[in-house]
Amino acid sequence: MKNNTPHHFRVREGDEVDLDKWPTGVKPLCASAEQCQQLREAHLTALTARQTLLYASNSYALLLIFQGMDAAGKDSAIKHVMSGVNPQGCQVYSFKQPSADELDHDFLWRTTRCLPERGRIGIFNRSYYEEVLVVRVHHELLAREGIPPALLDVKHLWQERYQSIRDHELHLTRNGTCVIKFFLHVSQEEQRKRLLKRIDDPQKNWKVGLTDTAERQLWAQYAKAYAACLSATSTQYAPWYVIPSDDKTNAQLIISQIILDALDKLPLRFPELDAQRREELLAMRHELAA
Amino acid sequence: MKNNTPHHFRVREGDEVDLDKWPTGVKPLCASAEQCQQLREAHLTALTARQTLLYASNSYALLLIFQGMDAAGKDSAIKHVMSGVNPQGCQVYSFKQPSADELDHDFLWRTTRCLPERGRIGIFNRSYYEEVLVVRVHHELLAREGIPPALLDVKHLWQERYQSIRDHELHLTRNGTCVIKFFLHVSQEEQRKRLLKRIDDPQKNWKVGLTDTAERQLWAQYAKAYAACLSATSTQYAPWYVIPSDDKTNAQLIISQIILDALDKLPLRFPELDAQRREELLAMRHELAA
Repeated sequence: MKNNTPHHFRVREGDEVDLDKWPTGVKPLCASAEQCQQLREAHLTALTARQTLLYASNSYALLLIFQGMDAAGKDSAIKHVMSGVNPQGCQVYSFKQPSADELDHDFLWRTTRCLPERGRIGIFNRSYYEEVLVVRVHHELLAREGIPPALLDVKHLWQERYQSIRDHELHLTRNGTCVIKFFLHVSQEEQRKRLLKRIDDPQKNWKVGLTDTAERQLWAQYAKAYAACLSATSTQYAPWYVIPSDDKTNAQLIISQIILDALDKLPLRFPELDAQRREELLAMRHELAA
Repeated sequence: MKNNTPHHFRVREGDEVDLDKWPTGVKPLCASAEQCQQLREAHLTALTARQTLLYASNSYALLLIFQGMDAAGKDSAIKHVMSGVNPQGCQVYSFKQPSADELDHDFLWRTTRCLPERGRIGIFNRSYYEEVLVVRVHHELLAREGIPPALLDVKHLWQERYQSIRDHELHLTRNGTCVIKFFLHVSQEEQRKRLLKRIDDPQKNWKVGLTDTAERQLWAQYAKAYAACLSATSTQYAPWYVIPSDDKTNAQLIISQIILDALDKLPLRFPELDAQRREELLAMRHELAA
C-alpha cells in the first residue's frame, strides 16, 4: 500500500486532532479503475476467508463503527466493503433518532443491545458517538434525554461521556470484541457536490434530508465536536482512523485494508478436535460410508 | 432506627472486607412481632409514595442488586420489601444460568438489557456479580464463556472484571440510575437450618437444588470471593450493604430503610406545568364541567 498504509490514518492515543491537518484526499492507491477493481476483489476474497475463520473460531467479535458528516460515504462504504461476506456472520445497525424507550436509558444502552456476538462482525452506521457529536452541536437534544437536571453539569458532561465511552470500549476489548472506528473525512466542497447530485438524481432523492443544508451551516461546530471526540476517544485498544474520503473508491480500499490488518492480528484458528471427538467423527464416517 | 442505622451496614470505598467481622445477626429493630408489622407497613406506605414520585418525575431510575448465598433470603426480601408497590414502576429480573446467546457477549451484556428505565425501580435477583462470584469459585465456568484464550489471563481477570463493574456503575450513576447493592449475610448454621426446612416442608421442596449441599461445601471459597468482590466494588456512588440476615424480618426492615433513605436523597419532584399547559388544562376543565 506504499505511502498509504493504514497506520498513516490512525489517531494515536493522546493526539490532539486538528481536522484541517488531516487530508480529505490522498494519492489514489491504484492507477486505474481496472486496478482498483482488482484490489477490491482481492480484499473481498481475503475478508471472506478471514470472516469464515472468525466465525468458526467463535471467540472474538469485531465491531466496526462508521461516523462522518452527511454524504461522507458511510452507507456506500459499508455496502462496498462488506457486500460479498456471509451475512450470517455480519450484522449492520443504523442508528437514527432514538426512541422514547431508548431515551429512557443511559446513552450506551441502545447500541449495547446490538453488539455483535462472538464470531461475528458488527457494523454500526452511526453509533453512541452521536451522543458527543450531534448532541454536542444541538444542545437542545440533551433536554430530550430526560437526564436529571442535577446531573446535567455541562462543564463536565462531555468529558464524562468520553470516559464512559473509553471504559465501555476497554471492557469490550478485554472481553473479546475488537473495536475499530472510522471517521470518513470529506471536504465541505465535496459534500456540496454530493448533496447537489442527490437532489439532481431522482434515484438519490430519498437520501436528501430537509435538515441536510441546515446541518451544513453548522460545519465548523461539527468539525470542532469531531476533533474533540477523536482526540479524547482514540485509544490503543480502540483506535480511530481518519479516512480521506473525497475519493470514495480510494476510501473504501483503505478501510478494507484496515479491517484485514485488524483481523490478521487476532489469534484466530479453526477449532481443533480432541481425540475423543475425532474418534466419534471417524465412527460416524464409517457408518455413513457402509 | 437507633444503633441500626443503614450506614452501619455500608461498606466504605476502599475498605478491606473480612466477612467474619460483619455480623449475621444484630439486635432486632422491633421488640415484638406487632411492632415489626407496624414498621413494615409504615415503610411500605413511605416506599409507595416515593415510588409514585420517582415515576412521575421520570428522571432517575433505581437499581437494587441482591446477592447472597443459597437460602440467604433474597427471594423473600424482594417479596416482602417490594410487594405493595405499583408493579408498573418496578421490574424484577432473576438471573440464573446464562443462555448460549448471552455467553456469546461480554459479561455485562445480559443484565444491561434489563436495566430499569427512568422513573422505574429495577431489581436484580443475582446479577453480573455472579461473574466474579460463582465463576470465580467454579473456574470451569469461565471456559464456557468463549473468551479468547489470549485474553484469559487469570492473574488479571478478576481485577479487570471489578474495574469493568465499577466503570459500568459510574456510567449508570452519572446518567441517572442510582445503584444500591445488598449482600444478604447469613451464618453457615442458619443456612443449614433453612435448607433442612426446605427439605422437610413439601411446599418448599421446589426451592431445593441438587447442587445446594455441594455448594455448601464451598462455603469458604464463596466467602473469600464475596469479601474480595465487596472490597473492590463498594464505591461512594454504588455502595454495598452487608445485611445481617439470620433474622429475615429484621433484614427486610433494614433493607427497606436503606431504600427509603436512598430515595429521599434523590432530588425528585412532580413535574411542574408551564403557564401555557396550565391554561390548556383549565380550558379542558371548563369544557368538561359545562
